[in-house]
Amino acid sequence: MARANSRDRELRERAAAVIPGGMYGHQSTALLPDDYPQYFERGEGAHIWDVDGKRYLDMMCAYGPNLFGYANPQIDAAFVRQLGLGDTLTGPTALMVELAEAFVAMVGHADWAMFCKNGTDATTMALTTARAHTRRKTVVRAKGAYHGAAPWCVPRPTGTLETDRAYQIICDYNDVASLEAAVAQAGDDLACIFAAPFKHDAFIDQAEPELAYARRARELCDATGALLVVDDVRAGLRIARDCSWAKIGVQPDLSTFGKCVANGHALSVFVGNNKARNAAAKIFVTGSFWFQAAPMAAAIETLGLVRETDYLERITGLGERLRDGLAERAKAAGFAMRQTGPVTMPLFLFDDDPDLRKGFCFSSAMLERGVYVHPWHNMFLCAAMTQADIDGALAAAEGAFGDLARQSATLPPVGKLAFLAAGGTR
Amino acid sequence: MARANSRDRELRERAAAVIPGGMYGHQSTALLPDDYPQYFERGEGAHIWDVDGKRYLDMMCAYGPNLFGYANPQIDAAFVRQLGLGDTLTGPTALMVELAEAFVAMVGHADWAMFCKNGTDATTMALTTARAHTRRKTVVRAKGAYHGAAPWCVPRPTGTLETDRAYQIICDYNDVASLEAAVAQAGDDLACIFAAPFKHDAFIDQAEPELAYARRARELCDATGALLVVDDVRAGLRIARDCSWAKIGVQPDLSTFGKCVANGHALSVFVGNNKARNAAAKIFVTGSFWFQAAPMAAAIETLGLVRETDYLERITGLGERLRDGLAERAKAAGFAMRQTGPVTMPLFLFDDDPDLRKGFCFSSAMLERGVYVHPWHNMFLCAAMTQADIDGALAAAEGAFGDLARQSATLPPVGKLAFLAAGGTR
Repeated sequence: MARANSRDRELRERAAAVIPGGMYGHQSTALLPDDYPQYFERGEGAHIWDVDGKRYLDMMCAYGPNLFGYANPQIDAAFVRQLGLGDTLTGPTALMVELAEAFVAMVGHADWAMFCKNGTDATTMALTTARAHTRRKTVVRAKGAYHGAAPWCVPRPTGTLETDRAYQIICDYNDVASLEAAVAQAGDDLACIFAAPFKHDAFIDQAEPELAYARRARELCDATGALLVVDDVRAGLRIARDCSWAKIGVQPDLSTFGKCVANGHALSVFVGNNKARNAAAKIFVTGSFWFQAAPMAAAIETLGLVRETDYLERITGLGERLRDGLAERAKAAGFAMRQTGPVTMPLFLFDDDPDLRKGFCFSSAMLERGVYVHPWHNMFLCAAMTQADIDGALAAAEGAFGDLARQSATLPPVGKLAFLAAGGTR
Repeated sequence: MARANSRDRELRERAAAVIPGGMYGHQSTALLPDDYPQYFERGEGAHIWDVDGKRYLDMMCAYGPNLFGYANPQIDAAFVRQLGLGDTLTGPTALMVELAEAFVAMVGHADWAMFCKNGTDATTMALTTARAHTRRKTVVRAKGAYHGAAPWCVPRPTGTLETDRAYQIICDYNDVASLEAAVAQAGDDLACIFAAPFKHDAFIDQAEPELAYARRARELCDATGALLVVDDVRAGLRIARDCSWAKIGVQPDLSTFGKCVANGHALSVFVGNNKARNAAAKIFVTGSFWFQAAPMAAAIETLGLVRETDYLERITGLGERLRDGLAERAKAAGFAMRQTGPVTMPLFLFDDDPDLRKGFCFSSAMLERGVYVHPWHNMFLCAAMTQADIDGALAAAEGAFGDLARQSATLPPVGKLAFLAAGGTR
């Protein structure tokens, strides 16, 4: 594992002086194996290069934003063209209207759209709109589901207050009885049910939404006048060319998109139906960069590729090839590896691996072979990946399982994930 | 006032169908004179063009982000170069470290920096860090001061809850006794004092910070162990090449930047001193686009221009020329126009103008003459403006005062601002 990673080490040392803790947020490598690079040099198509020049097939796709390939020529040309005309101006451009029309045309339940920068902006707007619409306070949402990094939804509460999370009731995902109990507890104060399109919490198996659960959420909202929200920031456009729950035939009132809607350019989206239009018009929301025209030009181009190409069928096919090939190789090597979630957003976890020492060993062995996988967060496929890329990843996995087999009896504990084995959370 | 604004009208009609209320946020023209365009086509240097082809000297500078000119060739070349290498990747690039180093070098009180997208992200991080550092809850902030659009600081509460604003005490800006009373009320629970660099509330006169007030805020924080925050999102880099309060010799613990730090590219910044470093490292904050490399490349270029050019002296000189020239012309025309705030961020209000009918008339007359001014929000100067631009604006003002003089006895009420005359807020 002797990599020449001197540039990465040098940057980490400099960062330690000028960035609290050296790095923050989901792209910090603090909870990844020690050999994972922190800093990258460039990206192209499905590949990234770290600052020491090593190239990887990137199974994270920037944690979602890369859907049509890094530095996609068509999308970035539209962005750069608009940048030359005008990006952040004293008002919006016509692109904002065109993009709202494109979202309304694409998302079945949407009658209108609003644009912002962070996924968290969109989910917070959904919450605020539901409260404004119903003039009620209480939100029901599933345990562990990530809806952003604002005080009302932050997964680790340091520095936030209990009052920031007042009027929230937590239920279990896919558990109809738990959902019903939460709604009953809300009484006549239910403003909304906040649903993840599928269960994509970190560190644990993912789960597809059960139809009975999704339908019951819709019924409970209809019965109480509350709004149903599907937070599609992470999953949007990798499950359907529509809201992800369109696939199972359940329409929310509100939904949120982000990450890949402009293929990596900063844009997120809040859409809703006519029921919520007046409330959405009344909330106070804004941001210095929310009206930027260049990311909207990129989004219009991205939605064009969504409509006009077979990207979804292709990444689904690649995801199935990866899942089947990995299952076969894991079995052959004698490992019980669980692959969960949609095939376009897979997560790999090993049985009997409480502190993820097997997962760390496997991931590091993949990394060494030029495939960047994540040991505990769902991954993302992109349309720039080819069958050859997937076959290369499978060849790497065969080697990685071999490494794991040789080392598995003597793997060291993963100290940084000891909290998992102890049953805790981050 | 017969402008051929058919393209703007057409876009407004289309927007009404797909955007709640037709438009939202600070760039909605709902509270501007009816002849103000909603949609723009392009920007270059100090000028913008609306979608009907009319060109304006833009005194709003995109509400701040334009500091070195729209489509600045040097800054945008750095952005586009980085975009081709990699922007939103699976981790940050070396530019993040370089940019943190540049902020630490530039901002006197800063020992570290963190990056995000919205100004609101940065102010929320400051609040959370102060609460994490002190393990206390209460924040003292000034009445009417805008610190963003999150539920804890939103100026219009529709859809948010009182609990979102729990543990806040409001004082009057520049009023030492009011500040002391608020701090006394906080007792042993004061986490931070949140200060605007100057009083820049909408609809009312702006005010420079009084030294006694700023010093007392610093003393009260030192005495209680609370942190002093200066929210420089709006004012940053237009008052000093440092935190804006460096000009009056008062150093906060934390401060926030945004808007113009990457000359219009989406980036905001949270900086602080070593006292708060551990707390800043512990809060949970992140965003899909917070690690984007291209806006960081643009920010590094922008900070280079901040360091190496006389932009601040030039925009200050232009602002003084504008202020003096306007005062002279207002007086000659017999109007009492109050010009408040730093000369680089001016606000114009007329005496005896409760519903801003004089302000609307004057602003429309300026707009007609190709100068985009705002009747109730502070404006912004940029380094792409020339003496000729300012002289053109003064010539326009001479004509606009003439229009106002002819019409002032018969100006219609401004219905959309009737709430102001009634003493209310939006």
